[in-house]
Amino acid sequence: MTTRTERLATWASGLQYDDIPQDVIQRTKDLFLDWFGCTIAGRHHPAVKAIAIFVQQMGPPSGKSEFVDSELGFSTSPAFAAMVNAASSHVVEQDDLHNRSIMHPATVIFPAALAVAQDLNANGRDFITACVVGYEVGCRVGEFLGKSHYARFHSTATGGVIGVAAATARLLGLDSAAMLSSIGTAGTQASGLWQFLLDATRSKQVHTGKACFDGIFAAYAAKSGLLGPKDVLEGPKGMGVALVPDTPIATAIDTDLGLDWAVLGSSFKWHASCRHTHPSVDALLQILSTHEVKFEDIDSVVTRTYQAAFDVLGLSGRGETVHQSKFNMGFVLAVTAQKGQALITDFTEEALQDVSLRNFQKRVRMELDEDINAAFPQKWQGKVIVTCKSGERYEKFVEYLKGDPQSPLTRTEIETKFKALAQYGAVKDADRIQRIITRAWDLENQDTLKELWL
Amino acid sequence: MTTRTERLATWASGLQYDDIPQDVIQRTKDLFLDWFGCTIAGRHHPAVKAIAIFVQQMGPPSGKSEFVDSELGFSTSPAFAAMVNAASSHVVEQDDLHNRSIMHPATVIFPAALAVAQDLNANGRDFITACVVGYEVGCRVGEFLGKSHYARFHSTATGGVIGVAAATARLLGLDSAAMLSSIGTAGTQASGLWQFLLDATRSKQVHTGKACFDGIFAAYAAKSGLLGPKDVLEGPKGMGVALVPDTPIATAIDTDLGLDWAVLGSSFKWHASCRHTHPSVDALLQILSTHEVKFEDIDSVVTRTYQAAFDVLGLSGRGETVHQSKFNMGFVLAVTAQKGQALITDFTEEALQDVSLRNFQKRVRMELDEDINAAFPQKWQGKVIVTCKSGERYEKFVEYLKGDPQSPLTRTEIETKFKALAQYGAVKDADRIQRIITRAWDLENQDTLKELWL
Repeated sequence: MTTRTERLATWASGLQYDDIPQDVIQRTKDLFLDWFGCTIAGRHHPAVKAIAIFVQQMGPPSGKSEFVDSELGFSTSPAFAAMVNAASSHVVEQDDLHNRSIMHPATVIFPAALAVAQDLNANGRDFITACVVGYEVGCRVGEFLGKSHYARFHSTATGGVIGVAAATARLLGLDSAAMLSSIGTAGTQASGLWQFLLDATRSKQVHTGKACFDGIFAAYAAKSGLLGPKDVLEGPKGMGVALVPDTPIATAIDTDLGLDWAVLGSSFKWHASCRHTHPSVDALLQILSTHEVKFEDIDSVVTRTYQAAFDVLGLSGRGETVHQSKFNMGFVLAVTAQKGQALITDFTEEALQDVSLRNFQKRVRMELDEDINAAFPQKWQGKVIVTCKSGERYEKFVEYLKGDPQSPLTRTEIETKFKALAQYGAVKDADRIQRIITRAWDLENQDTLKELWL
Repeated sequence: MTTRTERLATWASGLQYDDIPQDVIQRTKDLFLDWFGCTIAGRHHPAVKAIAIFVQQMGPPSGKSEFVDSELGFSTSPAFAAMVNAASSHVVEQDDLHNRSIMHPATVIFPAALAVAQDLNANGRDFITACVVGYEVGCRVGEFLGKSHYARFHSTATGGVIGVAAATARLLGLDSAAMLSSIGTAGTQASGLWQFLLDATRSKQVHTGKACFDGIFAAYAAKSGLLGPKDVLEGPKGMGVALVPDTPIATAIDTDLGLDWAVLGSSFKWHASCRHTHPSVDALLQILSTHEVKFEDIDSVVTRTYQAAFDVLGLSGRGETVHQSKFNMGFVLAVTAQKGQALITDFTEEALQDVSLRNFQKRVRMELDEDINAAFPQKWQGKVIVTCKSGERYEKFVEYLKGDPQSPLTRTEIETKFKALAQYGAVKDADRIQRIITRAWDLENQDTLKELWL
């Protein structure tokens, strides 16, 4: 009897570039450039530096795979290049989000596929094919693990490691049996707890960096004959039993393969805060503009949301650090009301000290909304109710967000966001920025993925 | 308020060689030589080779840390040397077992501490101190996670990664805060599922190898400033919640630190089969010798045991491979009855085809014994009831096993076992074997841990 995981592995090992619809290819390129910007923006973070030092201590002094950061030297082996780039791309909270799986696929799939493609000297089409496979496998595993898993685990890591293994195995040209071993060996390494959010420590970058390292290990080792457990998802001692408190969603593993594409189910982040605040930010922005309400006019805000938002946002306390402040609903809505936006440049040490923001923050209350909760994570909806000092009361419900699959960013918006992230990452060379954009939009015609950064 | 994990970290970062009682030092040396033999014996296994190829692909071509296998070249960086040596040492099912935590500490602590000690050019006393710290921290975490965790996870990996991080952090001389970060970053990487046992695949070596890599990463990164979650064990999103179905044993973390030593709670394995078969093997051997019962005389065997034995042994089916056969109670007792022992040389492809063994295997039945189950894992007890074809019936209960802390191997027995393992690992040079033994017995006076293998 064929298991669901075997069907997924067979599909993943067999996918050809020509099987992929044009809209999936185009969206993959959009998501890739969006990821590249995040990687540039995050590269100077202390967690990234600590991981980079480890890589310098443990890895080869040079190799075929490149760091997105010339200060680190230029190259190393693929597992280590991916580890550093993945850590970088998960710093600024601007990477994509696959709604149904509650995963950030870009931050693990692209760095792994890029490093491995460089190692194997693969071309743009091979790279795109591998990324589509990685998104599909990773996000399906994330959806399989579901909400109860996400309440405890950073699904980007636990689903991500399997997506990385699949993308790597596809680039290595592994057959379905070795693809299955890659998935199995990745699954038995799945890890990543939310505990770090409680004290603002640095596991977030560890999780994405290690998901890359571990997934690449799984696939390279499978190529060398290492057998992995065959049913690591649904087996009696597998992830579905050990890592999922509720019942996992088995159908997510293999339903509509080749028809329903994870790449098209992924959302761009427009705001710089945690994605769980975005429904409220969008709703608030619409109230501000529709009714011409100003920061000073607002007495209180109620935002109605789903349980997972409480689970994650509740861990960051009052928002003492810049990173925590992006996870504090009150602070994020205060920034939104004051600035009319929530961009990366709006979350600063200065903002943390702003008394008016801190006062506003206290007047924001989150409420659980049963309808919104029932729709999550298929839909990331939100409702905001603003009460003004004048007594006026405005309410706004949003079904889809800016950047959602139903309303993706345009190429112009993606370029704008990329340039802002590059500037935030202290890349001042406009020609270099333009070269990266140009190569991304022409990704399928690249003979090599080398020197993208230069 | 100080948490239990903070107290453990403070103790681990502060332990000095002179604080360690002599019997703990001597037992550490016993366990080290025992581990070294296992590492030699397992080095040619396909899983080890696949991991070694990955290390050659991703690591530096040379370094300060050595492989226990000259075929692999001589050296690399510590994370990778430890990864390969740890995989090697968990192949032949002859490594030690810490009873209360249901963990095999040697197979993760020694390879990590050895590789890091070589990297830092530490001496024998530094090495012993780090190993004692690693055993203590790892086994306490394993005991904290407990039986319900062990039913799903390979505790050697999930507790082991934290022990590795602590041992590494001690060698790096980290203070208590950085020790706590090392433990936290290790804990958020904890993984290792039993699923692989169901299809005889190769995750066992992945788990120990990766526990070393991941734990070394945690400590080196902590030295570079990477902050880890502070309460990764007891926190609301920590291991105790996410990875433990029942209630974890919180007191295990910090009770009697410096009084109750994990090194002294670890058992040597004398038989080559899964430790969960050892109580039955010991009881059967005693019946055989006391009553002069022979293989051919036996009609049936009932062995009464604890639940964890069912959980693990039940996964290996009929025992189709040499590795699975060591996890099949019926087959292990058949071998024991036929050979009068269960040594590494008794589990062979030939034995798998032996019809008389396979017939005997079918006449062995496991029963759950409530009293034995309640005492586990503090005591690994067993009871065997043999019914002979003549109608005679013999029953034997064992409270402690050969190799248990209450009855450890003598140095002569350890040397005998080491020589057998070295021969099994195709080391024929008796002088080299003797040199390793001599250096192990004089470990505290070694200025360097380099070239132990030569």
